[in-house]
Amino acid sequence: MIPNQHHIAARVARVRSRMTRAGIDTLVVTHLPNLSYLTGFVGSAGVVIVSSRRCLLLVDFRYVTAANALASSVDGAFAVETFEHSYDEAIVDVLRRQGASRIGIEAMYLPVSRFNAMSAGLAATAPLPLHSDAGTPVLVPTERLVESARVIKDEVEIAALREGGRRLARVAERVPDLVREGRTEEEVAADIEKALRAEGFSRLAFETIVASGPNSALPHARPTARVIRAGEPTVLDFGGVYDGYCVDLTRTVQLGTVSQPLRDLYAAVAEAHRAALAAVRPGVASSTIDAAAREVLERCGLGPAFGHGTGHGLGLEVHEDPRIARASARLPDLVVEPGMVFTIEPGAYVPGVGGVRIEDDVLVTETGCEVLTR
Amino acid sequence: MIPNQHHIAARVARVRSRMTRAGIDTLVVTHLPNLSYLTGFVGSAGVVIVSSRRCLLLVDFRYVTAANALASSVDGAFAVETFEHSYDEAIVDVLRRQGASRIGIEAMYLPVSRFNAMSAGLAATAPLPLHSDAGTPVLVPTERLVESARVIKDEVEIAALREGGRRLARVAERVPDLVREGRTEEEVAADIEKALRAEGFSRLAFETIVASGPNSALPHARPTARVIRAGEPTVLDFGGVYDGYCVDLTRTVQLGTVSQPLRDLYAAVAEAHRAALAAVRPGVASSTIDAAAREVLERCGLGPAFGHGTGHGLGLEVHEDPRIARASARLPDLVVEPGMVFTIEPGAYVPGVGGVRIEDDVLVTETGCEVLTR
Repeated sequence: MIPNQHHIAARVARVRSRMTRAGIDTLVVTHLPNLSYLTGFVGSAGVVIVSSRRCLLLVDFRYVTAANALASSVDGAFAVETFEHSYDEAIVDVLRRQGASRIGIEAMYLPVSRFNAMSAGLAATAPLPLHSDAGTPVLVPTERLVESARVIKDEVEIAALREGGRRLARVAERVPDLVREGRTEEEVAADIEKALRAEGFSRLAFETIVASGPNSALPHARPTARVIRAGEPTVLDFGGVYDGYCVDLTRTVQLGTVSQPLRDLYAAVAEAHRAALAAVRPGVASSTIDAAAREVLERCGLGPAFGHGTGHGLGLEVHEDPRIARASARLPDLVVEPGMVFTIEPGAYVPGVGGVRIEDDVLVTETGCEVLTR
Repeated sequence: MIPNQHHIAARVARVRSRMTRAGIDTLVVTHLPNLSYLTGFVGSAGVVIVSSRRCLLLVDFRYVTAANALASSVDGAFAVETFEHSYDEAIVDVLRRQGASRIGIEAMYLPVSRFNAMSAGLAATAPLPLHSDAGTPVLVPTERLVESARVIKDEVEIAALREGGRRLARVAERVPDLVREGRTEEEVAADIEKALRAEGFSRLAFETIVASGPNSALPHARPTARVIRAGEPTVLDFGGVYDGYCVDLTRTVQLGTVSQPLRDLYAAVAEAHRAALAAVRPGVASSTIDAAAREVLERCGLGPAFGHGTGHGLGLEVHEDPRIARASARLPDLVVEPGMVFTIEPGAYVPGVGGVRIEDDVLVTETGCEVLTR
């Protein structure tokens, strides 16, 4: 499913309402996933300039043909321009022509050098205050204006995530066959990546984790030449990008006969996973879902063994809002709404014993959630 | 080969001499490849603070153990610290304690939001001018201070790049067998990636390109489900990361009997490739190497078909200095020196006919160059 002019217009409208609240008349979008969201454009460079009247995609010569085709496919929901010299000069030129006054930039991503170049360009070309009512344009640092619009997925995005989840679940079905005694973590990882490609994923969403034995106690282990043995847990965490959207899944395989502590560990994480899934519904705070998983693990004495959050949003990026975690000053709590898509991935890691993580992706519905990866 | 305290000390000394020229007493390094260069540290976050007396690696709790082990392995050539709250707060704290005055930041990478947070932190904690000789510390945007030190590789880096090149050449030897009639671009790409993993590369240096038939005329094509046929060129561009260092190679396979224009195209690019390799030696300008390739293609009427530069530096990043291209205001010319490592990759792309690119990696020696990928 491809976004049409109505999808694009709705996305831009969501961003414009945030621009109004932020007190800016123009937004310069340089973070590439935000560009894709607003136009469907995928490339290694480009800029979108949103004003109250216009949405403009600025690309260099490499992307002009593709960008124009995209613009016609959405019936001109955005305009396309290209330029001679540099992006920063071209941005300044557009801002001047449009009479932009309070110009938002994406402060979490725009590097200082580009901010300075744009700032100097605007100052050099600004009319003298005497000759203009508008005054000198000013660059305003903003954060998460487009990201917060992206938190609620539209039907195009949901279709991509649902199909991606279905395909990722099919790869996961093959995992028990791949994890066999005598194989190395690297061999298993290579097979998973081959299966992801065969399922139509255009690329990995992140570097595949296959962590066996003691490595399973490290939440972010890389695959090694270690040989997988019976009686051990192996954590397999992998994901792919389908139609531009990221899906992410973890299974833990316990091979052969495992010790009672390992069986208990698995049972506790599986219960935490079920409890978190059951807690997902519109209106709850994201921290409530985290607490549902955390309470189970704490009750089993595994509170300290669960050193990360319960989940993260999925979309054009593999880690986005909402964060499903304890609320803090840096990550404030957020009310769950229909159309959000995120992972549920409690885990417990006990040095010397091993680790377990179980992860699925969910779409929040009107009444609860749909698990996309099973 | 692992960097020891002498390698680390020499790298830091190279950066310190650049700091002096830039008029700063402290440099806050946030670009991750630059962090790796100065400490050997590999992680998803971290900061290095270099002053005239000290080199400090600041990491969050996840990396403390690994960072300390690294510091002992180089006999304390750098110190390690961790922190309670955020990186930006911790940086300000270190800068205050060290009495930093003119503080360089990496303007090409530091986002505006982090610059503002550091700036506000320094202002909030600065002593009143009356109580200090130092005055309020100031953040100074700098560019390429560490990157320009990285242009000349040391023996540890050369060892990694040489071994990586050798292994990549072995993968390239298998290419003619992989490109067969009836196979899809995606299948061939999957086999190449499997071979890269089997050769010990820890990850891909970039997304593999397998571009057959008309796709070969697009320099940055992604592999598709297109079936490869006889009589067509297929461009295969792939690379891996070995011991932290990136190597990069392209071969063009012409399957079966190809038309005379395609044979001529291949011959011209192969000659341009040889001419550029022959031009590599200490003392020449980078643009001279580019001109050597470009002249051959222009003589064959293929000047406009060669739309990119002749090469780019390789190291901790897959695209770094030196750029082997026409000199311009944005990419000034650079004198080639022993210890530089870069690609030589002329190409010609004719819409409707097809494309050819041939790429190898070279190390500049005292007398010419060593081709690392054959």
